[in-house]
Amino acid sequence: MSELIKVVLDAMGGDYAPVEPVKAAVEAVKESDKIFVYLTGQEEVLKKELQKYTYPQDRIEVVHASEIIETGESPVKAIQSKKDSSLVKGLKMVREGKADAFVSAGSTGAVLVGGQVIVRKVPGVERAPLAPLIPTEKGFSLLIDCGANVDARSSHLVQFAIIGTIYMKYVIGIENPTVGLVNIGAEEEKGNALSKETFQLLKETEGINFIGNVEARDIPAGKADIIVTEAFTGNVILKLYEGLANTLIKKIKQGLMSTLRSKIGGILIKPALKKTMKSFDSAEYGGAPLLGLRGLVVKTHGSSKSLEIKNSILQCVKFTEQDLPGMISANLQPKEKKAE
Amino acid sequence: MSELIKVVLDAMGGDYAPVEPVKAAVEAVKESDKIFVYLTGQEEVLKKELQKYTYPQDRIEVVHASEIIETGESPVKAIQSKKDSSLVKGLKMVREGKADAFVSAGSTGAVLVGGQVIVRKVPGVERAPLAPLIPTEKGFSLLIDCGANVDARSSHLVQFAIIGTIYMKYVIGIENPTVGLVNIGAEEEKGNALSKETFQLLKETEGINFIGNVEARDIPAGKADIIVTEAFTGNVILKLYEGLANTLIKKIKQGLMSTLRSKIGGILIKPALKKTMKSFDSAEYGGAPLLGLRGLVVKTHGSSKSLEIKNSILQCVKFTEQDLPGMISANLQPKEKKAE
Repeated sequence: MSELIKVVLDAMGGDYAPVEPVKAAVEAVKESDKIFVYLTGQEEVLKKELQKYTYPQDRIEVVHASEIIETGESPVKAIQSKKDSSLVKGLKMVREGKADAFVSAGSTGAVLVGGQVIVRKVPGVERAPLAPLIPTEKGFSLLIDCGANVDARSSHLVQFAIIGTIYMKYVIGIENPTVGLVNIGAEEEKGNALSKETFQLLKETEGINFIGNVEARDIPAGKADIIVTEAFTGNVILKLYEGLANTLIKKIKQGLMSTLRSKIGGILIKPALKKTMKSFDSAEYGGAPLLGLRGLVVKTHGSSKSLEIKNSILQCVKFTEQDLPGMISANLQPKEKKAE
Repeated sequence: MSELIKVVLDAMGGDYAPVEPVKAAVEAVKESDKIFVYLTGQEEVLKKELQKYTYPQDRIEVVHASEIIETGESPVKAIQSKKDSSLVKGLKMVREGKADAFVSAGSTGAVLVGGQVIVRKVPGVERAPLAPLIPTEKGFSLLIDCGANVDARSSHLVQFAIIGTIYMKYVIGIENPTVGLVNIGAEEEKGNALSKETFQLLKETEGINFIGNVEARDIPAGKADIIVTEAFTGNVILKLYEGLANTLIKKIKQGLMSTLRSKIGGILIKPALKKTMKSFDSAEYGGAPLLGLRGLVVKTHGSSKSLEIKNSILQCVKFTEQDLPGMISANLQPKEKKAE
């Protein structure tokens, strides 16, 4: 039992809780015998949900939590006041070493704040970045940071490059992953004060494979494995990806309804189109890890069904086996303390 | 003759110069009898090109310029040293009142720098924003600013909202256009220092229809007519639009080749798909105006063919008839002088 990876799953978080999280937990322990899942949430509800399934009962345990943090709530307030929520209780288990990782489809803000406040950062990490994998022509890239950190400094971005490199190397398994800095031109002297300063620092950073600036048009083409940016721009990129893909698909579908010929063609291409869109759906890649913490915290989409949540749980195995927090800490140079 | 709108066209700018610019000039004067076009560039080359066409000869005039500014050159240096370039000569004609507008498919940097340095800003304007129309589900929105201005202040963004409103009202003809501020959340308190400060100022700005924050996912849905942002984020949005649309189309086409069924379907949907993609192609909307200058400067894509360049020329008519520089100046409050 001691070698099992213990993952806490916020069974009350997300649009389809508790049904889909519980289903995901069952699927995860069935798929991998390295996994143990703690389900945090209302005990009666969860136990009733679990009765639907047959599964290795010694690898799922319900941990009662009476409260639920809703998506609309202020993250800071919710974390402070709802001590008996499935989210706070789960994060505390990671902090106390009772679990290795925490997965939630609940409020993004609460997961980000809770991760930093409760699980806390690894020594040396200035900011904990949220880093989803986004689909590209070649496969996917790590977009770091898309989190709640605003008004970043260049030293933060350098850390994101180092942390992202460790993640892509040891969790995703990419040899010598390339690092690109989001900028408005390919040339070194382009950009705003932050990007110019960061460019110079990244050039001198050891242990990363920095390939220079990446313009936004080159991100979907998969120009770099790790796309470094501050959280505001990262958030814009992530959400524009989502919005633009939706709008284009809607437009194409409308277009297909315009003539009889295109309607027939539309029926014929439906399976292929669906498959293509699936390969471009970020849900396929599991959740986004909040990196740089003492334990692993993974945020999956609020609209996650069991497949995505299960993938997020399985993702935790590699992360934990590799002792990412330890590697991150070891790879960040000691730095002077500054007020954040 | 005195009522003609005089447009200078940089006949040596862009990937297909001088063939496509010359063709565009001919098409423009044929389509609108309000237009007079000056073609700047190497006289012999242009005259030879013009001989291919029949057109009202009293409405196109070649203005000789021996030099050409290349895309790779440093904009500032090029503007200073190549006084006899088609770009510098054209901009000077606008400055001297010999022409109302300047259109170029040449180097973006040189057009932006040249516009500000040679044509100069309207009194009261702090920064001249580049504002392309981008396609949305509902039609299009004005994305302001996508230019070379970096590290913007909130006062700049407020001016962009006012200038954008004037443009959408009087040039594009949208009644009471809505203004949205790009941010990482819909709520007032979300965002970085710049967006928080700008939100408060926009709430108090008279004469604009501010609807609050717009998340990037809502931009393609057409949530606001005018999308206000600083140039770094604007550039990321513009280029990601381009890159993501390209990648998705490529993926869809690959998907269509995957089975016999989808191949047949692909042939049937081709015309409808092409039409859909065309409606989502920013080239259809002409060039991007550099607003807030004493004359009109329009940048069209480097890859522009005659259709887009012609649209950019025709665009100048409304802009000039409405005296946009005068309106912009009148609508900007007097402000203290600050170092930029």
